[in-house]
Amino acid sequence: MIQVFTTGGTIDKHYYDANSEFEIADSLLPELLQEANISDPYQIAGLLRKDSLDITEQDRAAIVDAVAGTSAQRILITHGTDTMPETAQALAGISAKTVVLMGAMQPARMRRSDAVFNLGFAWAALKLLPPGIYIAMNGDVFEAGRVRKNLAAQRFERD
Amino acid sequence: MIQVFTTGGTIDKHYYDANSEFEIADSLLPELLQEANISDPYQIAGLLRKDSLDITEQDRAAIVDAVAGTSAQRILITHGTDTMPETAQALAGISAKTVVLMGAMQPARMRRSDAVFNLGFAWAALKLLPPGIYIAMNGDVFEAGRVRKNLAAQRFERD
Amino acid sequence: MIQVFTTGGTIDKHYYDANSEFEIADSLLPELLQEANISDPYQIAGLLRKDSLDITEQDRAAIVDAVAGTSAQRILITHGTDTMPETAQALAGISAKTVVLMGAMQPARMRRSDAVFNLGFAWAALKLLPPGIYIAMNGDVFEAGRVRKNLAAQRFERD
Amino acid sequence: MIQVFTTGGTIDKHYYDANSEFEIADSLLPELLQEANISDPYQIAGLLRKDSLDITEQDRAAIVDAVAGTSAQRILITHGTDTMPETAQALAGISAKTVVLMGAMQPARMRRSDAVFNLGFAWAALKLLPPGIYIAMNGDVFEAGRVRKNLAAQRFERD
Repeated sequence: MIQVFTTGGTIDKHYYDANSEFEIADSLLPELLQEANISDPYQIAGLLRKDSLDITEQDRAAIVDAVAGTSAQRILITHGTDTMPETAQALAGISAKTVVLMGAMQPARMRRSDAVFNLGFAWAALKLLPPGIYIAMNGDVFEAGRVRKNLAAQRFERD
Repeated sequence: MIQVFTTGGTIDKHYYDANSEFEIADSLLPELLQEANISDPYQIAGLLRKDSLDITEQDRAAIVDAVAGTSAQRILITHGTDTMPETAQALAGISAKTVVLMGAMQPARMRRSDAVFNLGFAWAALKLLPPGIYIAMNGDVFEAGRVRKNLAAQRFERD
Repeated sequence: MIQVFTTGGTIDKHYYDANSEFEIADSLLPELLQEANISDPYQIAGLLRKDSLDITEQDRAAIVDAVAGTSAQRILITHGTDTMPETAQALAGISAKTVVLMGAMQPARMRRSDAVFNLGFAWAALKLLPPGIYIAMNGDVFEAGRVRKNLAAQRFERD
Repeated sequence: MIQVFTTGGTIDKHYYDANSEFEIADSLLPELLQEANISDPYQIAGLLRKDSLDITEQDRAAIVDAVAGTSAQRILITHGTDTMPETAQALAGISAKTVVLMGAMQPARMRRSDAVFNLGFAWAALKLLPPGIYIAMNGDVFEAGRVRKNLAAQRFERD
C-alpha cells in the first residue's frame, strides 16, 4: 500500500473568477492516478490545503506525525515548491520509510503542466529508492537537507 | 546525456478524419519533455514509426544496433505495447547500459492518457536503475524476459 | 428548453487499446456543455452511437421521428460528418423548428480538436437562426440540401 | 475578412510560479482559431494586455478608434469580463459594423474552460447578427447597454 498525503501547493491550484485569483482547490491527485492506470494499491488523504509559504511549524509537525503514524512504508507527499526543502528537512528524523515530496511549477489543471510528469517520476522514485526523505522535481531526485529551490530558474538544485 | 529513441506505438497515435482511423504521427515526446521542465540534457531520435505488431525482426535488429551504437549510457525507448516484451528480450545482450522501454495504452494526444505519467515514471527508472533492460509501465518496473502484456486487463505483468 | 440528440460520429470517438482502434464511446456532450457554463436549460438524449457511414435509412427515419416528436423548438444533433448532409436532407420536411447538425473532424477527447469550438458555434446558430435545417461546421452555416463534405480538404462546402 | 482584437482578460491568463500569480500572457486566440479549422479568413491584432478592471477611459477610446478604423465589417474583441459591458457601451456609437465582445470565466490555458465554447459561440454571433454591438457570453447574446455581469452567479444577465 502506498500512502499519498496532499498538502496543497501550486499543483492543486484552480482559477476563481469571482476574485480574479488562483486558490488551492480539491486535489487532482485521485483523477491523475486513475488516468495513470497503475497497478499498486494506494490511498490518498488530505492533510493541508495551503500555499507552502503559509505552512507553519505546527503544520509541519502535523505532516511529520502523519508520516510517522501511517503503517505504509512508502509515502508520497504533494507540496508547494517554495518551502518543500524545509518540510523535507523536518521529516529527516524518519529513517525507516521511503518518503518522496513532489509538486509542480504549473497547476495540474493547466493544459500544459509539469504536474503529471512529476507525479510519474515521483512514483518511480518512491518504488525504487531505499528508505530516506527525498524531493523529486525537474526529473531529478534530491536528498533532504541538500536541496534548494532556485526561484529565478524555476528549478530545484543541489545545495 | 540521455538518449531517447522513438519507434511509434499508441503513445504517438493521432486521429485522421480522412480515413476515420488512428495512425502513428509525429512523436509528441519533444513537446512532452519540454513541458516537464527537466534538468538533464537529452536528445531524441526517431527510429521507427510503427504499430508494434508490425515491427519485424529486421526492425528489432535496427533498434539493438542503435542502442549498442550510441555513446549514451541511459536510453529511453518509446514503443507500442503489444510487442514491447519481445523488443526488450532482443536487447537483453546489452549489459553495460540502462535501457527503459515505455509506451501508453492511450495516445498522448488524448485529453486523458497514461502517456505523461508513464514518461515521468520511465524517466526516473532510467536515472535510478543499474544497467539492464527494463519495461516501465503501469507504475511498475519489469525486467526483460520476465514480463508479458495482459491484453484483457490492459496491464503488464510479471511472467 | 433546447433538445440535444447525440447519434455518434467522430466527435465521440475514443481509443481502445484492446483492439488498437477508435470506437464511439459515451458522448462527451454532457461534460462539454457543463464546462461551457451556459444559461439556457437543455436536455440530452442519445439516439444512436454510430459512425455516420453506418447510419441506415431506418436510423434516419428514427432521427426524423425524434425531431418531429419533441416539444422543443430548437434541436441540436451531434452527427458524424461523412453523411451529415444526407441526414440534414432527410429532416428537410420539418419546417417549424430550428435544427442544427454538428460534429467534429477530431474527437472531443483529443487535446486539440475542433469539437468544442464547433459546439459553441452550433449553439449560437441554434439560438439565432429562424426555423430550418442547418449544418454548422468549420465556422460556417449551411442550409440542408445545399452542402457537401469535401473529404480531401476536410471542410464542408456549399453545394 | 474578420478582424479579431485582443485586449487581455481572464481568457489569456497564465500561471507564473515566480510570483505565484496568474497574469495575462500571449493570447491563445491564434492557436484556438487554428484548431477550430474555420473557413473564413481572419486577422488578429493585440490592442491591450490588461485585466479589464485596469482598462482606462483612454484604453477604451483606443479600442473604439481601432474598431472604427478597420475596414472590416465584422470585429471580434476578446476582453476581460468585469468591465466588458462598459466597453460595449463605449462602442455603441459605431452603427455600421457587427462587433462582438467575448471572454471567459476560466483561462483558455486550463484543461476545463469555457473559453473555446465561448469563442465558437461568438464566431457564429459575429457571422449571423446584423450590425450592432453585442456581448456573447454564457451561450447567450446581449446588446450593448442592456447587460451586466452578475459576479456572484458568474453569469451575464440582461439589465
